[in-house]
Amino acid sequence: MSNLARIYPHDRVTLREVGLRDGLQLVRKWPDTDEKQQWLTREHAAGVRHFEIGSFLPAKSFPQFADIGEMISAVAALGDAHSAALALNERGLDDAMQTAVGEIVCVISATEDHSQANMRRSRADAIELVRKAASLRDAHAPDKIINAGIAMAFGCSISGDVEPGEVIRLAEACLEAGADVVGLADTVGYAGPHQVGAMSKAMARLCGERPFSIHLHDTRGMGIANAAAALDNGARVLDGSLGGLGGCPFAPGATGNVVFEDLVFLCETMGFATGIDLSALKQARAIAEHSMPDEAFYGALAKAGPPANLKWSA
Amino acid sequence: MSNLARIYPHDRVTLREVGLRDGLQLVRKWPDTDEKQQWLTREHAAGVRHFEIGSFLPAKSFPQFADIGEMISAVAALGDAHSAALALNERGLDDAMQTAVGEIVCVISATEDHSQANMRRSRADAIELVRKAASLRDAHAPDKIINAGIAMAFGCSISGDVEPGEVIRLAEACLEAGADVVGLADTVGYAGPHQVGAMSKAMARLCGERPFSIHLHDTRGMGIANAAAALDNGARVLDGSLGGLGGCPFAPGATGNVVFEDLVFLCETMGFATGIDLSALKQARAIAEHSMPDEAFYGALAKAGPPANLKWSA
Repeated sequence: MSNLARIYPHDRVTLREVGLRDGLQLVRKWPDTDEKQQWLTREHAAGVRHFEIGSFLPAKSFPQFADIGEMISAVAALGDAHSAALALNERGLDDAMQTAVGEIVCVISATEDHSQANMRRSRADAIELVRKAASLRDAHAPDKIINAGIAMAFGCSISGDVEPGEVIRLAEACLEAGADVVGLADTVGYAGPHQVGAMSKAMARLCGERPFSIHLHDTRGMGIANAAAALDNGARVLDGSLGGLGGCPFAPGATGNVVFEDLVFLCETMGFATGIDLSALKQARAIAEHSMPDEAFYGALAKAGPPANLKWSA
Repeated sequence: MSNLARIYPHDRVTLREVGLRDGLQLVRKWPDTDEKQQWLTREHAAGVRHFEIGSFLPAKSFPQFADIGEMISAVAALGDAHSAALALNERGLDDAMQTAVGEIVCVISATEDHSQANMRRSRADAIELVRKAASLRDAHAPDKIINAGIAMAFGCSISGDVEPGEVIRLAEACLEAGADVVGLADTVGYAGPHQVGAMSKAMARLCGERPFSIHLHDTRGMGIANAAAALDNGARVLDGSLGGLGGCPFAPGATGNVVFEDLVFLCETMGFATGIDLSALKQARAIAEHSMPDEAFYGALAKAGPPANLKWSA
């Protein structure tokens, strides 16, 4: 079996917990390395295997990710877990190649306006970074997975509506540039389930047996409904963050990523076994809540617990 | 056009705001009549037309509904709005018949265990109350709509799994007893979207052009996903409560009804025009929050607002 098919088996659902990366991107206070590692190990004990744990960015600007090397080692030490981290420029790529990180995530904007405003580069340049990542990987670290995440894929806070065909063309360009996995992100929570379902179907057609991922934000309450639509239309890799940590850079005070705990429950109701123990996940949440007392933690499952008397409950 | 088709046109979605009933059922402090009427008029100004405003219950035990007569009059005064209220016994039915309430909601439990524990009567007796309601209506108030709500229709906090065929048989029995509308309630938030989709499809088959309603709780975060599945499978009448008020009698501290604001947004993303202005709805929420400062108000849309630059936004 190829490394890709081993990490993302296409016959089951993979849930990526991105709280340690996307969840910490906007916070003013973050857990120290020891607390992050407790968060990680408790989630691992609950059955989580995929962790996005940081970004390769200058520690001066993003001190919450200064311990990225230690976090990668902590995931590697778990033996059966997979780490992913963002690399947003060549410097980040070079740094990533020096580590044991399992997956390098490059980011492309779906719209030229957002690409210029957010990244100060064109979409074409962003795709060239994916090509660079794949070529470095081929030369130095053949086991690493290259993931190209398309931000604003369902609507853009600058450009508004995003043409689905354009997103698919960008996804195709990322694959052609050497990406193993393409992800679509509803960065600002504009999407509804019909839109996510249609895009997932188009991605499934484009990618075949290759994985593609769907990264949803719950900014307008559609997170779980959109995840259900994605699963119903062939998506098998979904992101979520513990307690819905993450916020929205364009809507201060808004809810963040789709809530990981509720996402697990959703999958179980839909017949996708996650291998994740919802009760055990509460211990990871307790660590995160304790280390960030000023952050809002979301999610209904954490308040109510799983139904005690249903036959499928985890 | 029949009265039923006028109140519940089958070619569009009807959203019932149940905050003034289900939302106030468990609270310790509730808005006074003036505040309730402000809540009502501001929602009406935002475009809401269906209000569940109370239960015909002894004022001694349920003082929050002591002003039900005034609330019915307040809805009637709006001219183009529809009021609904629960009647749980013969006394309640008799009281309801004396008022201008537009719709009387009787409740049946999906399981015999819950029926006995919660209502101290059999399901068969509950269906007889529906028959009584329809017969009183025929004799005294032909314009009133009789609604039979089936609680625990997707899983029961006492009996666990609920057999879908049994729910459909109960729904059929309610129609046979004279109900105009049958509602299925996920009282304790056990359902996932596949289950809600399948039940909605079965109800659409059973009811034909008659309306049926879906009443969802967000106890485990599935509320909006379940609403999307209901809409995708033929449901056109959905309940929600402002700010997700309502809680769960079997899970203290849990989230309540599906959030009305998010439900409006969901419908708009799915191409169902609601006629409801999400920004104006915030004023109704402000009244409710002000009158119940100790209650948790949920919902992502209220934090983030609708997307400013999408073509379909309300």
